[in-house]
Amino acid sequence: METALSALGQRTAPPAISWLMKTALSRPKLISLAAGFTDNASLPVDISRQLLNGILRSPKTGQPALQYGTTAGEPQLRELTAAHLQQLDGGSDRAHSAERVLITGGSQQLLYMTLEALCDEGDIVIVEDPTYFVFLSILQSRGIRARGVKLTRDGLDLVQLEKILTQLKNSGELRRVKALYLVTYFQNPTGVTTSFAKKRAALRLLKKFERAAGHPLYLIEDAAYRELRFDGGVDVPTALTLPGARHRVIYAGTYSKPFATGARVGFGILPEPVYTAVLRIKGNHDFGTANLLQALLTRALASGDYDQQVAKAQKNYARKARVMKQALAKHFPACVEIWESGGGLYFWARLPAGISCGVNSEIFRAALKHDVLYVPGELCYAADTARRAPDNELRISFGSASETNLREGVKRLGAVLRKFLK
Amino acid sequence: METALSALGQRTAPPAISWLMKTALSRPKLISLAAGFTDNASLPVDISRQLLNGILRSPKTGQPALQYGTTAGEPQLRELTAAHLQQLDGGSDRAHSAERVLITGGSQQLLYMTLEALCDEGDIVIVEDPTYFVFLSILQSRGIRARGVKLTRDGLDLVQLEKILTQLKNSGELRRVKALYLVTYFQNPTGVTTSFAKKRAALRLLKKFERAAGHPLYLIEDAAYRELRFDGGVDVPTALTLPGARHRVIYAGTYSKPFATGARVGFGILPEPVYTAVLRIKGNHDFGTANLLQALLTRALASGDYDQQVAKAQKNYARKARVMKQALAKHFPACVEIWESGGGLYFWARLPAGISCGVNSEIFRAALKHDVLYVPGELCYAADTARRAPDNELRISFGSASETNLREGVKRLGAVLRKFLK
Repeated sequence: METALSALGQRTAPPAISWLMKTALSRPKLISLAAGFTDNASLPVDISRQLLNGILRSPKTGQPALQYGTTAGEPQLRELTAAHLQQLDGGSDRAHSAERVLITGGSQQLLYMTLEALCDEGDIVIVEDPTYFVFLSILQSRGIRARGVKLTRDGLDLVQLEKILTQLKNSGELRRVKALYLVTYFQNPTGVTTSFAKKRAALRLLKKFERAAGHPLYLIEDAAYRELRFDGGVDVPTALTLPGARHRVIYAGTYSKPFATGARVGFGILPEPVYTAVLRIKGNHDFGTANLLQALLTRALASGDYDQQVAKAQKNYARKARVMKQALAKHFPACVEIWESGGGLYFWARLPAGISCGVNSEIFRAALKHDVLYVPGELCYAADTARRAPDNELRISFGSASETNLREGVKRLGAVLRKFLK
Repeated sequence: METALSALGQRTAPPAISWLMKTALSRPKLISLAAGFTDNASLPVDISRQLLNGILRSPKTGQPALQYGTTAGEPQLRELTAAHLQQLDGGSDRAHSAERVLITGGSQQLLYMTLEALCDEGDIVIVEDPTYFVFLSILQSRGIRARGVKLTRDGLDLVQLEKILTQLKNSGELRRVKALYLVTYFQNPTGVTTSFAKKRAALRLLKKFERAAGHPLYLIEDAAYRELRFDGGVDVPTALTLPGARHRVIYAGTYSKPFATGARVGFGILPEPVYTAVLRIKGNHDFGTANLLQALLTRALASGDYDQQVAKAQKNYARKARVMKQALAKHFPACVEIWESGGGLYFWARLPAGISCGVNSEIFRAALKHDVLYVPGELCYAADTARRAPDNELRISFGSASETNLREGVKRLGAVLRKFLK
């Protein structure tokens, strides 16, 4: 008897992170520098208790929070989200209207539904090389092809992007391209922030190739780590503020990472007709994100508690990043190239060419044996046969481990690397 | 320029409920007997506040509730869910193990992902005639074909089910059939509860046709309304307790309806290989339901507050159903057939043959004009060209309207019906 599973059901591979997490659970003394978890100690436990108490103190606010809402999300939260983005963008109000905001179960759900709305099996999405591995899992599951564009220290390599678009045009495959996916702030996994100039140039390039594609080419801007910046300096504006963005930029944002990963509320800002398509799809997924979580975030934003919490988290991650940086300087061999970031949760490290630290490498096994786990960089590269994915990189996170464990974990990993790199 | 939307993105129709809700919003004096909302006054506002206070009082329990968890759900909640189902099934422990429990964002998300895992475009799911309209929306969106089997007062018409399976076998289409979807307790929209004998017979029939299909034929049991029963009597056991169910029954349950629709936590019990496929798909959707909501339900179940709340809700809905029943007896013409239920949120009414109360009917427009809204029954019928869907039925809910409004709404609707049925 054959399987009854659909092509998607059969194809969907186990997520890379579940394998890493299982590995972590089976070794109780292991220090995980792999997980993208946020820092437990900086989670807003007291703030959430006070806010939820306020919501549930009276039936007037408590009942709506425990009732169904609308599929697009609570009107006040959509308003506050539009205003919050305007503030992050220095007051610009272009393309930030509440009508275009969709509240989702984390930004992950928004990414999933956006790909459902845009891509048929065999379609192509252009991604950064490397990029967020759960996004790659969605592509794999849905039979969407990926083309990788090399990432440099200020964003994607525009020359290569144009080259790939031209190749696709010449091979007649441009009509299968639907979007370019960029993780624009403190990227997962590299920590890279895309410069505004590069966002502008990328959007222009997409526009230039649209006629040949025969349909809009969307820029999906994933800003999940945007608010996890270390300093109070000026933010790079989102691609939403660019001319023409109103019709071509899909923005994925989240309150999970900056506020609480256990209160999964994300959001999207989408142009038509994508907005309506994704809204309808969400009607079938869950007809609306849990109102209790939406009420919590609404109160947090409206009261200013959200901003206070984010400021606290920023300081905390800045400190932890400094601890990791010092440990890396002390313990890692000098031949390892370290990419430092101004925010987010990650350092990216590159070993000399020819030295593998991939899933099946001796280095990865030795690290596990010494009870330290990292994310092999190769997991962050799309299955793109047009280039060979490097296997000499690794992602290490300062998000969840304690400062003591950060020092100890980097020390262990450094010792393993020294052994193999001497 | 063409659209960039996928086939799914282009095909997905606006959900019926969003249209009904918009209609409700545009008429402030309207009494909606349409929405499937639960009763605001019986929502567990105080209980939730106390439980959340308990969770967030200390970092030890507060931090995990605000942190990411695992994709399958919190281990304790999965255990409690398995135990809870055993209790509902009178202590039977067959096929109720925590390892097979998947925690989801409401049971809706479970239904969506299950169809993703099982059905390709063009596949067939057999449904009840009529059935839950958001399930039909998923089928429509994903290009899955539906075949409707007439529903009688104790569940689906088994003779017709066998006839349809035989027809599909003879036409060579049985290999496209993946599942039979039944809403087995106080069904939405009719209030019908499927007898255990019918569950057994349906599962046997599926088993009988499996060889011809060439793959397993699954019984999807949607038990969303199971706990909204009016009396404390004995529950019909789930299909999970049937012999052979362990490999063929997919159970969709929820805590949203009985506890709080704003704290969307549902669950599935699934056989392999569907469990693993759906788990992987959930990894891509959201890699796990919000931990804060899971912590709330875990505490509610473990403390006994859940059972107390459900008992309170049951009494409340029993009272509201009695109010509606009395109003129906008083105001509806005698020629209208009323299906009364022992639980859930709905009455089902059938007008004499030939009288339409569908979306485009004079009756529906007249009802709206008199500020009362119902769900036209035709929205609950699958797009199945093998039969003509009736348009002389309607679903009215006693879930969200106050008792005063229930009386007034039924009175208004009765007056409209009397006008057209005299």
